[in-house]
Amino acid sequence: MAEDKKLVQEITSMSEDFAQWYTDVVKKAELCDYTSVKGCMAIKPAGYAIWENIQAELDRRFKATGVKNCNMPMFIPESLLQKEADHVEGFAPEVAWVTQGGLEPLQEKLCVRPTSETLFCDYYQRNVHSYRDLPQVLNQWVSVVRWEKTTRPFLRSREFLWQEGHTAHATEQEAEERTIQMLNVYADFCQDFLAIPVVKGQKTEKEKFAGAKATYTIESLMHDGKALQSGTSHNFGDGFAHAFGIQFADKDNQLKYVHQTSWGMTTRMIGAIIMVHGDDSGLKLPPRVAPTQVMIVPIMQKKEGVLEAARDLLAKLKEAGIRAELDDSDKSPGFRFADCEMRGIPLRIEIGPRDIEAGKCLFVRRDTHEKSDAALDSAAAAAAAMLDTIQKDMFEAAKAHRDAHTYTAVSLDEFVETVNTKPGFIKAMWCGCRECEDRIKEMTAATSRCMPFEQEQISDVCVCCGRPAKKMVYWGRAY
Amino acid sequence: MAEDKKLVQEITSMSEDFAQWYTDVVKKAELCDYTSVKGCMAIKPAGYAIWENIQAELDRRFKATGVKNCNMPMFIPESLLQKEADHVEGFAPEVAWVTQGGLEPLQEKLCVRPTSETLFCDYYQRNVHSYRDLPQVLNQWVSVVRWEKTTRPFLRSREFLWQEGHTAHATEQEAEERTIQMLNVYADFCQDFLAIPVVKGQKTEKEKFAGAKATYTIESLMHDGKALQSGTSHNFGDGFAHAFGIQFADKDNQLKYVHQTSWGMTTRMIGAIIMVHGDDSGLKLPPRVAPTQVMIVPIMQKKEGVLEAARDLLAKLKEAGIRAELDDSDKSPGFRFADCEMRGIPLRIEIGPRDIEAGKCLFVRRDTHEKSDAALDSAAAAAAAMLDTIQKDMFEAAKAHRDAHTYTAVSLDEFVETVNTKPGFIKAMWCGCRECEDRIKEMTAATSRCMPFEQEQISDVCVCCGRPAKKMVYWGRAY
Repeated sequence: MAEDKKLVQEITSMSEDFAQWYTDVVKKAELCDYTSVKGCMAIKPAGYAIWENIQAELDRRFKATGVKNCNMPMFIPESLLQKEADHVEGFAPEVAWVTQGGLEPLQEKLCVRPTSETLFCDYYQRNVHSYRDLPQVLNQWVSVVRWEKTTRPFLRSREFLWQEGHTAHATEQEAEERTIQMLNVYADFCQDFLAIPVVKGQKTEKEKFAGAKATYTIESLMHDGKALQSGTSHNFGDGFAHAFGIQFADKDNQLKYVHQTSWGMTTRMIGAIIMVHGDDSGLKLPPRVAPTQVMIVPIMQKKEGVLEAARDLLAKLKEAGIRAELDDSDKSPGFRFADCEMRGIPLRIEIGPRDIEAGKCLFVRRDTHEKSDAALDSAAAAAAAMLDTIQKDMFEAAKAHRDAHTYTAVSLDEFVETVNTKPGFIKAMWCGCRECEDRIKEMTAATSRCMPFEQEQISDVCVCCGRPAKKMVYWGRAY
Repeated sequence: MAEDKKLVQEITSMSEDFAQWYTDVVKKAELCDYTSVKGCMAIKPAGYAIWENIQAELDRRFKATGVKNCNMPMFIPESLLQKEADHVEGFAPEVAWVTQGGLEPLQEKLCVRPTSETLFCDYYQRNVHSYRDLPQVLNQWVSVVRWEKTTRPFLRSREFLWQEGHTAHATEQEAEERTIQMLNVYADFCQDFLAIPVVKGQKTEKEKFAGAKATYTIESLMHDGKALQSGTSHNFGDGFAHAFGIQFADKDNQLKYVHQTSWGMTTRMIGAIIMVHGDDSGLKLPPRVAPTQVMIVPIMQKKEGVLEAARDLLAKLKEAGIRAELDDSDKSPGFRFADCEMRGIPLRIEIGPRDIEAGKCLFVRRDTHEKSDAALDSAAAAAAAMLDTIQKDMFEAAKAHRDAHTYTAVSLDEFVETVNTKPGFIKAMWCGCRECEDRIKEMTAATSRCMPFEQEQISDVCVCCGRPAKKMVYWGRAY
């Protein structure tokens, strides 16, 4: 059992040092690796398999709303990036520049895309001429580069994977509807598939995307009480269309500017899964996103009939559409149990000689560590039902944690006290002024996460300045 | 019918100007678009949907052989690229360099990956320690950048999409087996899925990959008689392992170097599909790779019952697992027919009032333009069978064309005469010397495509120098 201990020992406890716990999980669950490229990570197979499941499910949901995939270049000429003033101001300080191609210096330097609004605008300018060409509802699955100073696996790296949707519409209303539609796709996806509860709302002017008219966001709460922006959807109005000259002949024969949106979700959601669900035994994957949903661990597998029974069970689980595997390695059962836990596999099934004799096997849930017997001849159906239960319970547990760590504050003193003693979301009223946002950030390092669609009247005055309140805002320290 | 004519008129005939025909098809079938980024293309939804099907099928075939996906950074530090001498010599002249990150110049410049051997070596060096860590069979779906001087959509662009597999093994034999295994995956994929016949063989020393011990290739023949390298698989031996210090403790407790492979297929296969199957009506997609396999075109669709019958048929086709669509636009039937042809949709089904009355519909094959009636109540099964027939017939037609354009030459005069008058593959004997390869290229612009696994003894002497022959080689002018 020395091996088991070794595996468990090396992980720091969450309560002791959350940041170190996170790093330990990433490493021990083999999700990603550092590289010789500063600030960039290698996503290992176990981490990438999670991303593949996220991709497949999101892509399916996108396509059900009429989204089509395409691919734009990874480079943006400097002159193109500069066309929209707010946008270039927001991104220019953090881009990587290509200045040499082959053996020669480039005439115009190219940035590696930090986001692709300008490329899609360039594309729409060439491809949209008539109302018949609208709407354009495109998406691409690519990586982008932002030259961050401090980086952390999945949460903040110089290159990260994402999808970016970019649409163009004939009317302002249609663009706004698409912006909200995609925010809802993200929210439903997070809640149904990743078992992560989210708050939907609008970003303040200070926090909105560079070049956007309005930015909508879903915000989730990590186990340590810090917030994570989990997906954003932007309505650009016709600002980019004016900057890039994207006009179309409408049904009434008038030349009009298109209205645009963009929306993105990234590999940082893998970080969210770790930090919302994980515990001191390691990663904890919701069944729907788990690459391996069930691991069968045979006990005393050298005894006659054990491996055979385990393989039969594996076949039945696979037949039932469950992503199951068998760990018949020569490591001790204790090591294999700990390994399953570290990798976050939702359900472990133990099967040994006495179980087989009794016609049963043992289910061990990753989320609650609860154990229960299941009859061997109906184990596949029982496992499927158990996975559904785990998915549901993990969402409820995350929601209960989020709700228990959502506070209110009606005065600045209370706000500061809460931030410093109770990590979580703080709901507090706001006058709408940039000054109060800046002051709160300066005093507490908390930022406005969003103005939630579901407003509450906590008090009548701004928590910071005492002037009449305009909006209830979710605040928090954030990743 | 003026509209139909317009659509057809704008495409150059293949026999008149093949290069212009290719460009016309790419444009009219809306596969890709030029961009403001010189030498880089935007892949439009119709083109990207083909790539998505290629990806899904190849990925499925890879995974069936044990491949796992991952993701490495897009940048390579200069010092890392330089570690393997042949490799850096091959790639350095054509890479793009990032020299500035954010507002500051980089201490070490980074190239945008032209291929990722060095990154995978760096990864294996950190992650492989014991024979228990082997084999490593990884793949990534990404884009790479090579600073080409002249570019053509899909065939040669500064950025292109591909997959690159990179593996590490305990023994030389296992690496060689994996190299051949993946070449066979490519060959079967091309033949079964893209209906493109290929020749399997080994590249000569002159044509092999920079840093490889052996490069294997599949070569296909385009309609104009030019060859296209369609997929390559490289055995690196332990050369990279020595350069990067990738060692593992073997079962016998000895420290050994790993043996590595890599293999790739790119978006240039979309170019191959166009140039192998297309005709003067436009693109012609094999059913298995076609995003839309069947297009239903209702005739006199304003008559009562026509649209209803067309929608019924659409539902039945979809239920049978066929990727079908309905073109109920207000354009003339002739325009819609021509549009289906241009986009390469394998099967068109026309349905009008008289068909419905007679309980039938009309099948029109894209590949042969043949028409046949089908009973409405069994149309789905008939369409599925017809798609299978089209897939098979397209492969046979491409193979017949390839075979009819494969020649032999036993003297240099005959070789030169054949190259200049009969575009296609030339099979000819070779002594194995670089000088003869260089001379043939200089005289004819033809290069050695491969030394096929299926050797034939065409003559006893080298077609160029007359010395004893070592290998029969496929030669040809190539894209």
